[in-house]
Amino acid sequence: MPTILGQNQYGKAENRVVKITRDGATHHIKDLNVSVSLSGDMDEVHYSGSNASVLPTDTTKNTVYAFAKEHGIDSAEQFGIHLARHFVTSRQPIHRARIRVEEYAWERIETSGEAEHSFVRRGQEVRLTQITYDGSSWEVVSGLKDLVVMNSTDSEFRGFVKDRYTTLKEARDRILATEVSGRWRFNWTDDEQPMPDWEESYARTKEHLLQAFAETYSLSLQQTLYQMGARIIDHRGEIDEVRFSLPNKHHFLVDLEPFGLENDTADGAVYFAADRPYGLIEATILRDGCAARIPVDLTRL
Amino acid sequence: MPTILGQNQYGKAENRVVKITRDGATHHIKDLNVSVSLSGDMDEVHYSGSNASVLPTDTTKNTVYAFAKEHGIDSAEQFGIHLARHFVTSRQPIHRARIRVEEYAWERIETSGEAEHSFVRRGQEVRLTQITYDGSSWEVVSGLKDLVVMNSTDSEFRGFVKDRYTTLKEARDRILATEVSGRWRFNWTDDEQPMPDWEESYARTKEHLLQAFAETYSLSLQQTLYQMGARIIDHRGEIDEVRFSLPNKHHFLVDLEPFGLENDTADGAVYFAADRPYGLIEATILRDGCAARIPVDLTRL
Amino acid sequence: MPTILGQNQYGKAENRVVKITRDGATHHIKDLNVSVSLSGDMDEVHYSGSNASVLPTDTTKNTVYAFAKEHGIDSAEQFGIHLARHFVTSRQPIHRARIRVEEYAWERIETSGEAEHSFVRRGQEVRLTQITYDGSSWEVVSGLKDLVVMNSTDSEFRGFVKDRYTTLKEARDRILATEVSGRWRFNWTDDEQPMPDWEESYARTKEHLLQAFAETYSLSLQQTLYQMGARIIDHRGEIDEVRFSLPNKHHFLVDLEPFGLENDTADGAVYFAADRPYGLIEATILRDGCAARIPVDLTRL
Amino acid sequence: MPTILGQNQYGKAENRVVKITRDGATHHIKDLNVSVSLSGDMDEVHYSGSNASVLPTDTTKNTVYAFAKEHGIDSAEQFGIHLARHFVTSRQPIHRARIRVEEYAWERIETSGEAEHSFVRRGQEVRLTQITYDGSSWEVVSGLKDLVVMNSTDSEFRGFVKDRYTTLKEARDRILATEVSGRWRFNWTDDEQPMPDWEESYARTKEHLLQAFAETYSLSLQQTLYQMGARIIDHRGEIDEVRFSLPNKHHFLVDLEPFGLENDTADGAVYFAADRPYGLIEATILRDGCAARIPVDLTRL
Repeated sequence: MPTILGQNQYGKAENRVVKITRDGATHHIKDLNVSVSLSGDMDEVHYSGSNASVLPTDTTKNTVYAFAKEHGIDSAEQFGIHLARHFVTSRQPIHRARIRVEEYAWERIETSGEAEHSFVRRGQEVRLTQITYDGSSWEVVSGLKDLVVMNSTDSEFRGFVKDRYTTLKEARDRILATEVSGRWRFNWTDDEQPMPDWEESYARTKEHLLQAFAETYSLSLQQTLYQMGARIIDHRGEIDEVRFSLPNKHHFLVDLEPFGLENDTADGAVYFAADRPYGLIEATILRDGCAARIPVDLTRL
Repeated sequence: MPTILGQNQYGKAENRVVKITRDGATHHIKDLNVSVSLSGDMDEVHYSGSNASVLPTDTTKNTVYAFAKEHGIDSAEQFGIHLARHFVTSRQPIHRARIRVEEYAWERIETSGEAEHSFVRRGQEVRLTQITYDGSSWEVVSGLKDLVVMNSTDSEFRGFVKDRYTTLKEARDRILATEVSGRWRFNWTDDEQPMPDWEESYARTKEHLLQAFAETYSLSLQQTLYQMGARIIDHRGEIDEVRFSLPNKHHFLVDLEPFGLENDTADGAVYFAADRPYGLIEATILRDGCAARIPVDLTRL
Repeated sequence: MPTILGQNQYGKAENRVVKITRDGATHHIKDLNVSVSLSGDMDEVHYSGSNASVLPTDTTKNTVYAFAKEHGIDSAEQFGIHLARHFVTSRQPIHRARIRVEEYAWERIETSGEAEHSFVRRGQEVRLTQITYDGSSWEVVSGLKDLVVMNSTDSEFRGFVKDRYTTLKEARDRILATEVSGRWRFNWTDDEQPMPDWEESYARTKEHLLQAFAETYSLSLQQTLYQMGARIIDHRGEIDEVRFSLPNKHHFLVDLEPFGLENDTADGAVYFAADRPYGLIEATILRDGCAARIPVDLTRL
Repeated sequence: MPTILGQNQYGKAENRVVKITRDGATHHIKDLNVSVSLSGDMDEVHYSGSNASVLPTDTTKNTVYAFAKEHGIDSAEQFGIHLARHFVTSRQPIHRARIRVEEYAWERIETSGEAEHSFVRRGQEVRLTQITYDGSSWEVVSGLKDLVVMNSTDSEFRGFVKDRYTTLKEARDRILATEVSGRWRFNWTDDEQPMPDWEESYARTKEHLLQAFAETYSLSLQQTLYQMGARIIDHRGEIDEVRFSLPNKHHFLVDLEPFGLENDTADGAVYFAADRPYGLIEATILRDGCAARIPVDLTRL
């Protein structure tokens, strides 16, 4: 046979699960999008179509909903760990499970009454996690996407290489804006280790990321990116690796000279917010001595 | 000639303009997407291709940026009024201008320093306004879209009509969730009238809308919709008409009986959040005695 | 009561229905997205939440699927007519039904065997129709969206108005590209009239639209738009009104002079395809003597 | 220093370039979206913000447009090879270049005249390629996305594993539909080797993929996926590795029993086309003896 099967995985993607817990009149909400991906001894289904080792993707969906009821959802990470362990330990042909979760945040609507069951979706960023388990060790990579940030000053871009195709002018004051997509890998890998506080870790990591973005006087987006990652590694002992993919959301000063108007970055600057093309800056920041495991290309979930 | 020209309009759509104003180290941001649409004596360009009456769409774009510099952006509404007045009064063949604006909200990133030039996009809803001017009277319709809200209880759906095709069970306790798209029309139509405080009006109207959603014990989404509109009309004297388009974002209780699990709306309910199809409830609420002018189908901008 | 209810409608939107018919080994596919919207005596459900006149949106969904089985889907238009008639004539409080349909086209995959049950989605445009019925007369508006077309020459833009904000250069040769969104209204309004051949009408109308776009030497996009509509009215007696919304998908000649390269519209021109902003040209073309009924803003379905 | 820099890359993403070549009155179009990503000695820009080794992303954009003029666009692959070679060989600090290209296909609009300059976008799939060069060897991975296909019969799913959470019924006749995302790696790695005919290779590979999908009697989507990949490897000697990501676009038979209607897969079956969740089947197929290099998660471009 001239062809062989390589890496393969399967499961049910994008199971939308909402869980409401009630503490008297005060309700709490968890709103997740859960994707299951399983690997193992699956050669036969590819070669001959025999499903004898295949747990249906429909079953993985049912399991997600049943586990939300049976075990609750303390955090996206904890929920993913429950699921991954179940698939790997309960089904012999399955050797590896990867659970990806998107989480959508809600805040309460202020009302005059006592009731606390009304919510409005925050919409600022989507929280992410990916749990991988092979029966012996864990990999937990969490992160976020769609977080749009801007510094309206304290950003330069100068001293760069010029070649035959360079026309860009140096900038001493520009807008720096990006839509953060970030992932961070935890050094928790073993059931024997104490588990991080996933909720606290996410809240603090997002805070560090935002503050490093805001407080760095930027000579390049690469430098800002590095500061964002280094700040996380420095402050969060549970995280060993961070990767960011940062589009440079260009804001160009509009040329208003033809209309007799000066438009510089002093007070009252008017910018055109461009769509495409955009600079794209990507890098990994590591705790010294740690190996990189987050893929170069950050994917959707 | 057997064919004739009917209503027509043209302009530059989706001009993305960002303006930064500086109050010492404290910066302020206005982030708009502005679309211009002009009508008037434009028969010839359609019939023969003569552009003798056509102000280029490129010029309307330039005007947006120049006006952001010259006149500033106090509010989306005020900015649209400036632009509409300019196009109708400065160009003889143009009889009507319609300016549509999307506005994106930003909040400050908390930092340890004094500087106030760092922002994160809120992402909760997109604010909208549409200004129409024909040289004598104004129509201002503002609104929002993409505002996702949920009540986790205090919603029923019972006592409905049953026909041959009805299988739905009555519900005494369900999730009510929707993505609000709303428009409200101001009774300011004339330069002689005092102009509303557009920023204040928007903030209060959004608040009323949210509170009416949260505080209504809902027997149907139609009833909730009506309460949301009536609350606005009752409290905001500057608004005469409201229209909502409310998709019923269905959250179905998952059937967990096959797995020996009870899943009702008491504590710990697990729901499947569905995408399509969805109920779609649309209605206009009017101040008594006022005529309806907002179109039946709410459009994008 | 200071507020009153205005226009209102409700129903189930985006019912995705696929029907496979078999002619021996040769299969045929109809792939639709159907949205139902009903109006009538619905004051009480808005004012008090009484559902005594409300046929659930869930029932309208069931009806779509049941009708696909019982009556088949000869065409999107015919299917919508069946549904609209049913809702208006079978339920007393419902006075008006509006059915919107998107249709997705598939073509066959060529295979070596006899079987004809394999398809690939065409993806070129989405076909649309909207059926409105009030118990006595019909309005059928069909159309399409997402049809992207380009002329790589035979387009000018000159002789336009210049004002203080005009910087655009005249163009004697440019790319003209747009993404066609069009709607056309049939003069079939009465069950007594012979019904058009909906499939044939759509195929020919799309052909006329494309050929008018291709064959018009364009002095402005407005002129091209008018020719597209006039060609349809001239050739298709069943259609009285056409409306187009045509974004001018700008393709800008890239300035390569800084690199010592000439880049004009002669052989080998290189263009930057821009996203935003874009010109937006919208107009109605009517058979002489007919009234306009298609709304100014074309909406999604 | 407790943190260090890992893999990093930067460049300008999504440069939209359209090139028109003229052969008398017959025009030809190439419509690409080109993303550049460069790596090399870039530590300093991350650590200190020094741009002394940084060729601006704006320059990489200019290079894309200038090369389209100077060297033409024979194929997406050939164009990417030109660009990658340029960046790696012309700038000392750059050691690796990755060029990603999306290509959009257009077909001619049939007209009565001689002119051949009118086009309509096909819309069926997006063609992809990724060129990576490190100064000595090449990796070319091409592919496609958004190609939606369906078999309306000749698909079963039976004999699968059942556990506590399994409720799925076995299916002897079902719709099999997916949206193909595929990548294939060429064994051309060296300038000494004869280069494949990239256009011919793409056309044939797409054909094999479609025919294998259509002609396989499917016992599982995994089996169909494998056949699609194996068919390509068998017939295209220039390709050593294929990876597919195939969402199972579920079409569920609607239960019409409550309305007294039978709905099975015999003639006239009515299906509900679901959005989420969906099965997701992913696998690599390799020429025997070759190593896998395409990442497990297929990314956007």
